[in-house]
Amino acid sequence: MKTKIKLDANLTPYPMPMVLVGAKVRGKPNFLAVAWFTKVNYDPAMIGVALGQGHHTNEGILENKCFSVNIPSTEQIIPADYCGIVTGNKKNKSGVFETFDGELGAPLIVDCPVSIECKLVQKVELPGDLFFIGRVKAIYSEERYLTDGKLDLQKTKPFLYTSPDKGYWSIGSRVGKAYSDGKKFSGRPKKAG
Amino acid sequence: MKTKIKLDANLTPYPMPMVLVGAKVRGKPNFLAVAWFTKVNYDPAMIGVALGQGHHTNEGILENKCFSVNIPSTEQIIPADYCGIVTGNKKNKSGVFETFDGELGAPLIVDCPVSIECKLVQKVELPGDLFFIGRVKAIYSEERYLTDGKLDLQKTKPFLYTSPDKGYWSIGSRVGKAYSDGKKFSGRPKKAG
Repeated sequence: MKTKIKLDANLTPYPMPMVLVGAKVRGKPNFLAVAWFTKVNYDPAMIGVALGQGHHTNEGILENKCFSVNIPSTEQIIPADYCGIVTGNKKNKSGVFETFDGELGAPLIVDCPVSIECKLVQKVELPGDLFFIGRVKAIYSEERYLTDGKLDLQKTKPFLYTSPDKGYWSIGSRVGKAYSDGKKFSGRPKKAG
Repeated sequence: MKTKIKLDANLTPYPMPMVLVGAKVRGKPNFLAVAWFTKVNYDPAMIGVALGQGHHTNEGILENKCFSVNIPSTEQIIPADYCGIVTGNKKNKSGVFETFDGELGAPLIVDCPVSIECKLVQKVELPGDLFFIGRVKAIYSEERYLTDGKLDLQKTKPFLYTSPDKGYWSIGSRVGKAYSDGKKFSGRPKKAG
């Protein structure tokens, strides 16, 4: 067997898309830069976001029972990163982005190519984080981000976050086709002597 | 305001890294291709994976109270995708990868640049999915994937999954620095006329 080494268990050893989780806190839109989130249910569509306890945004999610997940493009790295540096507890972030209200009242970012409004359905308490599970109410985008009626990654230009190097990365090129490439599998290659 | 349109709420409008979630089912290693997962707690480190109810792997996670999250490289697209096409209910997938056992007994993939072993700590039942939360027991890699002692994305070469186009994508180039670029933020630009 190849020589395996153990890395720090607190490492996040893969890239994740960077998003801005939004909620109104005492009436004012607030956004937090987050890379710990995922879809958790297909139908109805649900998204979970893990937020450290004590974040200003948490208060707004619990108060209004809704939140937004906004997917910035590489053009918005500076304001997006700003929302990861500055806490809403100390600084009013309501002016960082132009926003519009979703049907549930969550603040959505006009300039983000994609914004998702979620209704809070469950809160999972973990030792240091709260994992908020929301049912997707609507996904907003614009015609200019579509190609043949479908959302086009090369137009929305999301970016990824990696640690511990604290890097932001673009999406590269298409390297395969899911539910298709696997058909070529014909057994594990035999190892040379 | 720009003209927003609504997309299908079931869409996953951002890329996610593709991983192989592993468990022993009735003693045999089984792997499932998964893009719905995330860190959910920092300390202790915890990862959540959302698996549709009925997956063969679920049985093994519940039986052994542990699972693995293996991060394949672009070189493993074919066997990784195969694990997303073929169900362990019908086909024995134990020979697809060479594996080694973690300390808890979860099967880890030798050829994946990074493998994480998790101890099951919580199961969140959702309408169609089970969200398994595991505490990270260990993260395994190899010296050849490190640069200056740190995991190097350009060596581990993870890939991303996107829907509805069912694409696999590579990681692009470094486009920013987190907790740093935001310091350049000096207020929202004024819109022209």
